Amino acid sequence: MANPSPGNSITLRVSAPSNFTVTSELAAAAASAGAAVTALDIVESQHESIVVDITANTTDDAHADRVKDALEALDGVHVQHVSDRTFLMHLGGKLEVNSKFVIRNRDDLSRAYTPGVARVCMAIAEDPSAARNLTIKRNTIAVVTDGTAVLGLGDIGPAAALPVMEGKAALFKQFANVDAWPVCLDTKDTEEIIMIVKAMAPVYGGINLEDIAAPRCFEIERRLKEELDIPVFHDDQHGTAIVTLAALTNALKVVEKNISDVKIVVAGVGAAGNAIIQLLLAQGAKNIVACGRNGAVNRSEEYTDAHRTWLANNTNPDNFTGTLHEAVVGADVFIGVSGPNVIGEAEVAAMAPKSIVFAMANPTPEVDPVIASKYAAVVATGRSDFPNQINNVLAFPGFFRGLLDAHVSDISDEMLVAAATAIANRVDASELNASFIIPSVFDPHVAGDVAAAVASAAASTLAERATL
Amino acid sequence: MANPSPGNSITLRVSAPSNFTVTSELAAAAASAGAAVTALDIVESQHESIVVDITANTTDDAHADRVKDALEALDGVHVQHVSDRTFLMHLGGKLEVNSKFVIRNRDDLSRAYTPGVARVCMAIAEDPSAARNLTIKRNTIAVVTDGTAVLGLGDIGPAAALPVMEGKAALFKQFANVDAWPVCLDTKDTEEIIMIVKAMAPVYGGINLEDIAAPRCFEIERRLKEELDIPVFHDDQHGTAIVTLAALTNALKVVEKNISDVKIVVAGVGAAGNAIIQLLLAQGAKNIVACGRNGAVNRSEEYTDAHRTWLANNTNPDNFTGTLHEAVVGADVFIGVSGPNVIGEAEVAAMAPKSIVFAMANPTPEVDPVIASKYAAVVATGRSDFPNQINNVLAFPGFFRGLLDAHVSDISDEMLVAAATAIANRVDASELNASFIIPSVFDPHVAGDVAAAVASAAASTLAERATL
Repeated sequence: MANPSPGNSITLRVSAPSNFTVTSELAAAAASAGAAVTALDIVESQHESIVVDITANTTDDAHADRVKDALEALDGVHVQHVSDRTFLMHLGGKLEVNSKFVIRNRDDLSRAYTPGVARVCMAIAEDPSAARNLTIKRNTIAVVTDGTAVLGLGDIGPAAALPVMEGKAALFKQFANVDAWPVCLDTKDTEEIIMIVKAMAPVYGGINLEDIAAPRCFEIERRLKEELDIPVFHDDQHGTAIVTLAALTNALKVVEKNISDVKIVVAGVGAAGNAIIQLLLAQGAKNIVACGRNGAVNRSEEYTDAHRTWLANNTNPDNFTGTLHEAVVGADVFIGVSGPNVIGEAEVAAMAPKSIVFAMANPTPEVDPVIASKYAAVVATGRSDFPNQINNVLAFPGFFRGLLDAHVSDISDEMLVAAATAIANRVDASELNASFIIPSVFDPHVAGDVAAAVASAAASTLAERATL
Repeated sequence: MANPSPGNSITLRVSAPSNFTVTSELAAAAASAGAAVTALDIVESQHESIVVDITANTTDDAHADRVKDALEALDGVHVQHVSDRTFLMHLGGKLEVNSKFVIRNRDDLSRAYTPGVARVCMAIAEDPSAARNLTIKRNTIAVVTDGTAVLGLGDIGPAAALPVMEGKAALFKQFANVDAWPVCLDTKDTEEIIMIVKAMAPVYGGINLEDIAAPRCFEIERRLKEELDIPVFHDDQHGTAIVTLAALTNALKVVEKNISDVKIVVAGVGAAGNAIIQLLLAQGAKNIVACGRNGAVNRSEEYTDAHRTWLANNTNPDNFTGTLHEAVVGADVFIGVSGPNVIGEAEVAAMAPKSIVFAMANPTPEVDPVIASKYAAVVATGRSDFPNQINNVLAFPGFFRGLLDAHVSDISDEMLVAAATAIANRVDASELNASFIIPSVFDPHVAGDVAAAVASAAASTLAERATL
């Protein structure tokens, strides 16, 4: 399944003899080596020779080398330089901190800084609630990680995690005008992380936990939720749960089944799996079987950790014991947030009629989506090169926009469900089909819809509390 | 000394009967109440009435109220609204986090974020030194405070300190294109602060400590300097010391004295006083007397803290014991980094001929500069409304620009002296006089000169080490 990807886009600067057919020969050579040529620019043209920039998508570094070799095999052709467009984009980092205004003269300086700023400081010292209006706290969140569970890469550490957190911050800004700042912590100690996030909280209106390994992430989230007066969101849990519920809502419409009737098997009981199961239960699912490495979580076993114990007591109504492969027999829905190829063709074939398969492991799904679609009525993945990409980008920017706009201090299940419903509703009844259950990440209306839904859910939560 | 200040600028929205002289009457009324009117804008004009925005500098909130009353005393005049321009500037905070590029389509997304970003992460995981080139670490510093010694306001806490840190970050960006981020910590525990700064260091290329109370700030700086591989700068110490040395260098030229010959009295042995004394010693000063609340620090007393012990052993060659007032008798230079009005007219009169007085306490200097200038040859303050403002803004942006450009890991005295010399040299021999010993904070060349001087000092430090 290794297709040339724009994530592996390279630009080769090539000198070649000048003749009538040279550019088409170069393009053909690159294509014959498997590269997807996306641009061909003449940089320099002389009587005898030309210099051409060939930009092409490749599958990986080794493939890029093969493309280079294929070009150099042509008579008189020399590759001067290969640049990697992804690395070029990351040079010097992807974010900058800007002042909202220019300090042109002494008057500006005396308002933005001393002496005028002292009055603003004193206003906050006298009334701490003024901080939200008079500082960046109003629109700023922290993207906090310890670098222990970054993408599918695992524990690569805080420095190596930074490019992901910068990208996340860029998405927050672009899709929902939220100012987000990366906080990459060089510690894996749960108590230290909790202490640090609490200590730095004065600057932030919300905390987005990111790529922190389970089970540490659960304790960190729970404690920060309890001990901070700003909302704490763990994207790997809540973000994933929102988009999964959104996709499932529409997939169930396509197959005309009800969430309360279907049997759902969830492969993976880490951060994402736990949160998905909780949100599906909140939305009315009755028959969920959670499968970890040792098969279905059930009440005939004793678990040492609180999360599996909770799962055993709140899912698996028939107390099924057995492997994942056995669990999916007759299931209506398979949701994978585990690893590559944990089920195969036989397992999808054994599911109930009109089954739904969400194989969200990245980059290699739990089952090949092409094979899954031979049997399942709806197939979705986390990948952009298949239909129905279940991508957290649909949720987190708008979700925090809503939290900040409504001054939310605590995230509720109602807000998560409201966000999922808003995303699902972006797919109009006329558009809905097995290959379009979830809107594009570039749908410009998603973030606004999610924000409004979250703010509205927050308002009704407040109203409910007021009537109690 | 309460002059109307742009830091207390207000805009009054006033409705008044429409007639030929109304605007001049309004301006006259505001002026008669002591306001300095800076703008008068007609917002709305009808046959019978007009609405005018009067913008004026005042001295404080009570004064603003008196200006409002003076306007309302006019026939038919009603003040609809008074807005405070300083607060307006701070609404929603002064900083934003921007992406350096727009993510327009899926190709951009796959380079900035998944899947392309994974290759950038792995490059850093494999070679941690790549982080500086491939992330915001290259150009980003943290402005760290615990909010315990903010401006002259004291311990107002981390939330109330944030407007100052935002202003500082804005200055870093504007004067030296350094991306600076405020870190306001809700803890006063030395060990916790050290641990937090170390843990968050992967994101930053430098640490600027700010407004942390002494003596805690010394230990925090010393330990972070030891334990981090990025430069740690305490602006209240190093920034103040740089600009003080710059100003003193030029002041000594004006009075034609040598730093090695003069007697210098420093009032204040906190963060700033200590750093100033160390830098003056490094630059060749021989006769410095440091005065705290209990008079001159000397070798006849026992001190419990390490800093006073160090001062006793390294300053005060004549082991003078006595009060500040006694110490300044015959002194060539007075440097005040203490509090308001610690010396008076008699003390300045008792100094040596052609004396130099730097009264840097803010907003009220150690001695009224108008009175001091009756006796002293050169007078400087921290205030913008007198000549010779000694302002850290001259130092910190360019200093960090130089540190980042030269990949400095440790700040040396040579770098501090080089920065001071660069600032002093911005005042040309033809411009230098008793009222112009230090360049304007808006001199567009200062930051670049300081950066180049720091980078050059760093290069010679490296070269020296290489030859050892």
